[in-house]
Amino acid sequence: MAGTDSRRRKSTAEEKGDVAPTPAIIMVDPQMAENIGTTARAMLNCGLTDLRLVRPRQGWPHEKAVASASGADSVLEGARMFDTTAEAIADLHYVLAATARGRDMNKTILTPRAAGEKTRTLGCSGEACGVLFGRERSGLVNDDVALADAVLMAPLNPAYRSLNIAQAVLLFAYEWFQAGSDSKGEHLVRHGAKPATKDELLGFFTHLEEELDVGGFLQPPEKRPAMVRNIRNMFQRAGLMDHEVRTLRGIISALTIGKKVKGKGGAAKRGRG
Amino acid sequence: MAGTDSRRRKSTAEEKGDVAPTPAIIMVDPQMAENIGTTARAMLNCGLTDLRLVRPRQGWPHEKAVASASGADSVLEGARMFDTTAEAIADLHYVLAATARGRDMNKTILTPRAAGEKTRTLGCSGEACGVLFGRERSGLVNDDVALADAVLMAPLNPAYRSLNIAQAVLLFAYEWFQAGSDSKGEHLVRHGAKPATKDELLGFFTHLEEELDVGGFLQPPEKRPAMVRNIRNMFQRAGLMDHEVRTLRGIISALTIGKKVKGKGGAAKRGRG
Repeated sequence: MAGTDSRRRKSTAEEKGDVAPTPAIIMVDPQMAENIGTTARAMLNCGLTDLRLVRPRQGWPHEKAVASASGADSVLEGARMFDTTAEAIADLHYVLAATARGRDMNKTILTPRAAGEKTRTLGCSGEACGVLFGRERSGLVNDDVALADAVLMAPLNPAYRSLNIAQAVLLFAYEWFQAGSDSKGEHLVRHGAKPATKDELLGFFTHLEEELDVGGFLQPPEKRPAMVRNIRNMFQRAGLMDHEVRTLRGIISALTIGKKVKGKGGAAKRGRG
Repeated sequence: MAGTDSRRRKSTAEEKGDVAPTPAIIMVDPQMAENIGTTARAMLNCGLTDLRLVRPRQGWPHEKAVASASGADSVLEGARMFDTTAEAIADLHYVLAATARGRDMNKTILTPRAAGEKTRTLGCSGEACGVLFGRERSGLVNDDVALADAVLMAPLNPAYRSLNIAQAVLLFAYEWFQAGSDSKGEHLVRHGAKPATKDELLGFFTHLEEELDVGGFLQPPEKRPAMVRNIRNMFQRAGLMDHEVRTLRGIISALTIGKKVKGKGGAAKRGRG
């Protein structure tokens, strides 16, 4: 029943018009249908849709796979069945074999990151890629590893390397997705708010420092400049929005309202600016 | 029962004498004990051991957590219980809130990679870090997000972002581990084998080309140089080991043994070198 279901799901990339093929995930001798479902979910999380199954032990399709896929049904529906690993990878140009432990073979080993970048690059050149994952307990047999161009092995805690199969698929799929993602590592979400201008910030600093003078906080006078710098630096680090500066000025006003003036001159200048 | 179990498991890093604290994983209102087990497994895969639980719905300890932890029992045994999120993060210096969707807050958002690097760097400076994960169905409440310094959000397929909680923990833990890993992205495993010297390789090339001359393969003469270059390049790309070169020479000999000599001079030079 090799390739009996040749319906091919379009990946997100393909739907966007980017026709680079997405890597296939090939599960060889999967023992638990549930793990096929969680694998499908991890794939779809990262935009992978080409799932191939070699001799699933519990048969196919299987309700437990659907139950554990949490909505990634499209991947399961598009899955194709094969009798042998060789048939499952016949149309691919570059194949990785995922293993948790080293094998006694002279083979190139790639981390998930290097594998994600490599398959992304090859895919952009039109080469079809795939990754073989073996049965849950024992992994791939050596003959299947030998069919692959290279080995995929994640650097993990050497004292506890046992990854669940869907977790292993996720690490590759995640890195493949990241290799094509233009996400910034760190960015501030502003929801339309505008960062405060330095003039707004300085207005706030002046307001605050006047009130602190009134309260006798910035004492003794020779330490005032350093104290002011420290306070200003603290608020500078917060990267304040314009509305947040207005809130802070409101806070100062609320804290000082009705307060008896102890110092000189501060009260006259007080205001919400 | 906040902090009732204060036994603290040593992480792999600590056991190696590297005393930088490893990030804590804080599960707030986890609904399924099974997910606590799979989370513990994902943590230990990446050398994380500090698990904190805020109000686990099914109580604690729980046999289903042990069953799904697949041997990561040490993390479960060291887990600490808290009544509130604030208590669970009280001793930490930098806290991230994992969310699958944007919130209406002005907050810095980090990818797992940026978060892994940041918490690794802060850890090396002695700052204790942690990541908050919310309940399976609905994630963290906004009040818990507001307790965090920044938000952790993985760039994923925008059409299907629903990560299993252990998968979400894995992506952070994996990136934290990678940030401290000196693994090469791609490397060749040799198992003690020595790469062939160029002299050995050239001996093989000469051997092969002589036999191909004998067989009349390198014809016509004006194309011989280009054909030789193509063949040599093909074998160069394989990065051959010395024993592999000997195997190839054995193959040539096996293929040509007993063969009738058609060309001139080739047979006299034939040998296994």
